[in-house]
Parts: sequence; C-alpha cells; structure tokens
Amino acid sequence: MRDLPFDIDDPRLAAATWSRLVEPGDKVTSALVTRLGAVEALRWLVGVARRGVGADAGPTLQAGPTLQAAARLVPRLENLDIRRELDVLARLGGHLVLPGDQGWPEQLDDLEDRPFALWVRGRLPGELPPGRLPAPPGAATPAVAVVGARAATAYGQRVAAELAVGLTEAGVAVVSGGAYGIDAAAHRGTLTAGGYTVAVLAGGVDRLYPAGNAALLEAIAADGAVFAEVPPGCAPSRSRFLARNRLIAALAGATVVVEAAWRSGALNTAAHAAGLSRPVGAVPGPVTSMASAGCHRLMREQGAVCVTDAAEVLELVMPLGAVEPESPPVQPSLLDGLDPRAARVLDSLPARGSAVVASIARAAGLSPAEVRSALGHLELGGHVDRDGGAWRRARARRGPALGAEHRLT
Amino acid sequence: MRDLPFDIDDPRLAAATWSRLVEPGDKVTSALVTRLGAVEALRWLVGVARRGVGADAGPTLQAGPTLQAAARLVPRLENLDIRRELDVLARLGGHLVLPGDQGWPEQLDDLEDRPFALWVRGRLPGELPPGRLPAPPGAATPAVAVVGARAATAYGQRVAAELAVGLTEAGVAVVSGGAYGIDAAAHRGTLTAGGYTVAVLAGGVDRLYPAGNAALLEAIAADGAVFAEVPPGCAPSRSRFLARNRLIAALAGATVVVEAAWRSGALNTAAHAAGLSRPVGAVPGPVTSMASAGCHRLMREQGAVCVTDAAEVLELVMPLGAVEPESPPVQPSLLDGLDPRAARVLDSLPARGSAVVASIARAAGLSPAEVRSALGHLELGGHVDRDGGAWRRARARRGPALGAEHRLT
Repeated sequence: MRDLPFDIDDPRLAAATWSRLVEPGDKVTSALVTRLGAVEALRWLVGVARRGVGADAGPTLQAGPTLQAAARLVPRLENLDIRRELDVLARLGGHLVLPGDQGWPEQLDDLEDRPFALWVRGRLPGELPPGRLPAPPGAATPAVAVVGARAATAYGQRVAAELAVGLTEAGVAVVSGGAYGIDAAAHRGTLTAGGYTVAVLAGGVDRLYPAGNAALLEAIAADGAVFAEVPPGCAPSRSRFLARNRLIAALAGATVVVEAAWRSGALNTAAHAAGLSRPVGAVPGPVTSMASAGCHRLMREQGAVCVTDAAEVLELVMPLGAVEPESPPVQPSLLDGLDPRAARVLDSLPARGSAVVASIARAAGLSPAEVRSALGHLELGGHVDRDGGAWRRARARRGPALGAEHRLT
Repeated sequence: MRDLPFDIDDPRLAAATWSRLVEPGDKVTSALVTRLGAVEALRWLVGVARRGVGADAGPTLQAGPTLQAAARLVPRLENLDIRRELDVLARLGGHLVLPGDQGWPEQLDDLEDRPFALWVRGRLPGELPPGRLPAPPGAATPAVAVVGARAATAYGQRVAAELAVGLTEAGVAVVSGGAYGIDAAAHRGTLTAGGYTVAVLAGGVDRLYPAGNAALLEAIAADGAVFAEVPPGCAPSRSRFLARNRLIAALAGATVVVEAAWRSGALNTAAHAAGLSRPVGAVPGPVTSMASAGCHRLMREQGAVCVTDAAEVLELVMPLGAVEPESPPVQPSLLDGLDPRAARVLDSLPARGSAVVASIARAAGLSPAEVRSALGHLELGGHVDRDGGAWRRARARRGPALGAEHRLT
C-alpha cells in the first residue's frame, strides 16, 4: 500500500486514525496503543501493511494476538484520511480530546479499553461560562449515569426527569445515551433544570441518532456535550452500542437504571458499572409493569441498590455523611416517645370516662406504684387528666389507641 | 386472697390462666412458666398472692425480676375463672392448643416469649378433610406471612391476592393479621384459591376485629384458622398488636411485606421475622406511591429481598433448587447464540443488498479468512444467504440490527 496521505507523526491525527481503524472495545489494540503511543503504534501498523503482514513484526511485537489484530486493520488503512473526519467535526464546532488533554475525563482511564480519543461536540471543562454549575464530568464534579428502557412508561420518564432535576440541584452532571424513553427524559430534565448533561453516542457525532431525538441532541451539544469514540460518518451498530455503554458507565460515579425490561441494554450498562466497581442503583416500579422487571432483576440478582429519589442516588456517589437523606415527614403518633410502661398505662385507660389506679393496674398488669409513677409522667406530657380521684385520657388527645397499630415501627 | 375457683393442677386450665394473666410478650414470665411448667408456676403465684408478695418466694425463685413480675400479676388473680373464657371458646367451636399438643405450631417454640397457649377457631392439623391441601402451618407444610398496610392501594391489594393464589397453588399456607387492606387481600386470595390461611388476632377470637372484616374472619375460621394468644373477651390494644406481630413472623417461614408506609406495623412484623433469622421479602412499587415507601426502605436499610411474584417468594421458603423461578418468556434476539465474530460479521452486512467478503472484512475489522469462516456458520444457521459471489442477510430474518440494542444482556 501507499503511505497515508497525512502526517502520522502528529499525535492528534494518529489517535484519531486509531479511533477510525479499530472497533470500540478492542482490548488487544488498545493495549498496543497504550504501550507504544498512538504515533509509534500507527507507524508500526503502516510498516506491517507496506511489507505484508507475515514479513516483519518488529522485535517486540511478535505476539500472535497483536499481529492478528494488525492483519484485521490493514485493509482499513486503504484510502483512509482522518483529516476529512476532523474537518467534519470542526465544521460542527467540535473538538478532538485525547487522553491526558485538558478536559479528558480521567474516569475513562479506569477502562481496560479506553477510547483512543473522544470526538466531542459541546462544552468542555474550562469552556463553561463562569458561574455555570456544575462543571462537566472530567472535572472534580461527580456525574451519575441515568439510563433505561427506550420503551419507557410515563412513570419511568417522570422519575428519570425528577432524578435529573434533583441531581442538577446537587451539582451533579447527568450522563446518558441519548436514546428515546428514559435517556431522553434524563437529558431533558437536566437541561430544564439548567444542569450539565452528556449524551454518549454509538455512532459519529454528526449522526444524531435516533433521528427523533436530533433536536434534543442539538440542545445537549449546545448546553452540555455529545461524546463519541468513533469519528463522524460512523454508523451506530449493535456492537458499538454495547461498547458505548462502557463509556456511559465509566464517565459516571454511579449508574442508575430507571426502567428496563427483563433483557435490556441498560442492564449491559449496569454490568459495565459493576465491572468498574461503581455503584449501581435501580428504581423500583410496579411488579405488574414489565418496564420495571429489569430493575427488580438487578436488585435481586446483581445487588443493585434500591433508589427512590435523587437523595438516595446521591448517597451512591457522595462520601458518607455528605448527603442528608430525605425522609418523608413523619406524623407523630400518640404514643411516640413514651417509655413502654407509660404507653401501657395510657393504653389501659378506657376510651371514655375515667379509671382509678387499682383498676388501671389490673388492666395494665402493673403494680399500683408503677401506675402512679407512669400517670405522673403522662400528666406532665398532657396525655392524661385527673378526674377527682381517678384518671382519664386528656380530651384533646383522646383517640382510639388501635388507630396507632400501623403507625408504629 | 381466696383460692382460684378451679383446679389449677389441670395443665390446660393452668396454661389458659397464664394466657389471661400475662400481657403477650412478657419474657420474664414466659421464662418462669417454661422452666416450672404452667401448673407449678401457677401454684407458686397463688401461694405468693396468699402470703403476700414480700413474704415468701421459695428457694429457687428469689430473683428480683420474677418477684416483680409476680407482684404485677397478683391483682389480676382476683375474680379470675378461666373456665368462663374456655366456655366462650367452646361455644364458638374453638380449641385450646398447648405447646407440645398435636397441632401446636412448633415454629412458635423459636420465640423467646412463646405463647402459653393458642386460642384457636378453625381447622387444626389432622382435622382437615382428607385430600385437602395444604395442611395448616404446624405440619410440615411451609407457610408465608403476607402482610402490609391497611391503607393499601388497588395495586397492593391485587399483588397480595396474586401472591396468595400462587402460594396456595404451591401448597404453601398464608399467614396474616386479618386487618383491612393487604392482610384482607392475602386472606381472601387464599380462600378463593381453596388454600389454607391463618389470621392471628391481637384480641380474643370472639372479637373479630376489625368489625368490617368480621365476615372475612368468619370465613377464615371456617376454612382456615383464627389464632389468638389472649383469651376471648380480651380487647386488641396497641401493645397486643405489636406482640401479635411476632406470632405472624414466627408462624411463617418467611415474611413478605406487600405495601407499607414509611412507618408501618408491617415493618414491625418484618423486624420480628429478621430477629428470628427468617427471610424477609418486600414487594416494590412506584416510588411515587407512599404506600410502597416502607417496602423500599426495607430493601435499602434491612436487606429485604425484592420479590415480584409468588415464585420469588417461594424461593425464600423452599430449599434451593426446589423452585424453578418463573422468567418472563424471552424473545429470542436475532444474534442470540452467535459467537462474537459471527455476530460482528452479521452486523456488518448491509441492511439491504449484498456485500463481498473483502468489503465485509473491512467493515467488520476482520480478516477475509475469519469472515469466510463466520459466513459459513451463519449460512448453516440460516442467518445469511449467498447472492452470487456475495452475501446478504437471510430474507426471513432481515431486520435492522439497531433494533437489537435494547434486547441484549
């Protein structure tokens, strides 16, 4: 073959070329490029192509798998000129970000098969308007992946949007896949709340897939960012969706699945998160809804944490103690805070009328002295009133003790 | 005081008397009666009453707590004649069942404060019509407690009833508390399916509480059983509800909470089950429903297992392998069962028209030899057809590979 028509000693062109040559998630090639660097590895590959695969592998690269990988890639070198794709990106206002660049999301370095480069449309760290919060992932700001079924219910979309709003209010970025359903609701919720959201695409950033979300993805590119690890022009394919899911999981400190059928791409993202030792949350739903079956499966089989609101999601990414979990307001019960003996005495008072100490003692199974002591405490607390020599429930508090049955821990 | 007006050497009368004297869940008295036996313990108590509490405690019973307990109980001996309550039970067609009796639910012996006796209306083991399945708890048949909020939603009641039907079909008895809402739905579902259900009451079995469930409780007494540890005439009280919950938990091999608010009596039953090292299941629901908040809390904070159908509940009580979990029918995906290389080749074929090996190899990033081998397998599997010297997707199977995105694990 002829030489490539551009300067392969330029690190940006070399890295971009690798992202064009190699299918995402190729661990062998990823290891090669990490070891040699994009320029040196590309120089070697071009040499292999020029001399023929069998002829020469260089002294340090005779390992079978590497050579086999090279053999697969050589046909793709034909007519390759990555400057075309970079031109497309530039026309879209995008950036190529390499590992180690300012703005590179360092969380991606946790991947065994990190991307060779990120093709980015949107705002990178340092490019945000001052005072805009939160910063994109890659900075110190935590990010949460909110993912789920395309065939989402109104319930799931509502929960996804509410989580996104709550995460935004806590200064957390929201990462998702730009798909219909849960992904779209999470992105939309974030944008509505003025937050920062990243859509990671399986194809090139010039192909806003799915087409029905093109306007949403443009809005994300304007206020957040659209990421891809393949160059413009690449079509989203099944294997690229699966590989893309590892980026969503790696970019986020935790992954939350809002709705997912029994088998769902969102479960694949959750598996990537678990593989990276990142927490996985799942939002429960009606057991009568197949759209929640995958979430329940994650809880049962994968140890996913049951999360019901943004505060509980934040517990997954924040250090312990940094978040105060939101508890529903608790209705104080009549007997709350009473010691067991006082509660038993109060419980033994007739609903109407009054009783003397001896009869209360018999009903409560306590000694008269114990009853007198408890009545003293109850009187101080306003729970009972004296009625001559007898005692009765305080009027304002009178109520059937039975009603407390289900208000008890 | 005068002697009791009946033969306290009769073990049944003595045990029944203890169940009248002592508030449920009194660990000190329970230990005393277990140690001495109901008759001997009652003889001692009557002696204490006759001589005065301070005068004589016998050589082995001088421990402070026991004597304090006795002091509390002595006033209740006044006018006590347990034969009246036994007559009431007999008129209702009920039985008194003592620890060790045939029909005594041996699971209750796991309690530190097991009941002195059970006041039972309904069928006991051995009394069931032949062929009737399942046998009541106490026999070898497993039982599951299905409990939850009185303020249940239509969703919760539906799930409770469906669980009860599924458990019945598996030959498992259903235990609950006879309350409105989830309890009633579980009992009704069991009766409808022809199963065996036990309602454990907080008051006497002559007081079918709540009144609105009286007809249901009568039906349970006819086809299943109504249990109480207090004699007829005793009112349900707050502390008796809490003590009753331990019986529900102890009678069952596992406890399932279907719906429960953030604070709920059902959580108390679940805590008793956990205290007995019995599994606890919780049914998830919409996070927007406060009626499921307690269930989600159990999963998050108490390690309750997420259960969504009867098969998953059965896994809690059945030995591993005894139950085949019901999985939703899985739609076979186009690429299921293909090795990754074949899947990649199939994925690289154009949606329409055909492609030659060299172009497939370039698209897939595989060598031509690898592509040819994969195409052979795909042809055998009916996934691809030859088209002259080229290959195309098999007609019947043709479809957008993208559609598979969310059908993948």
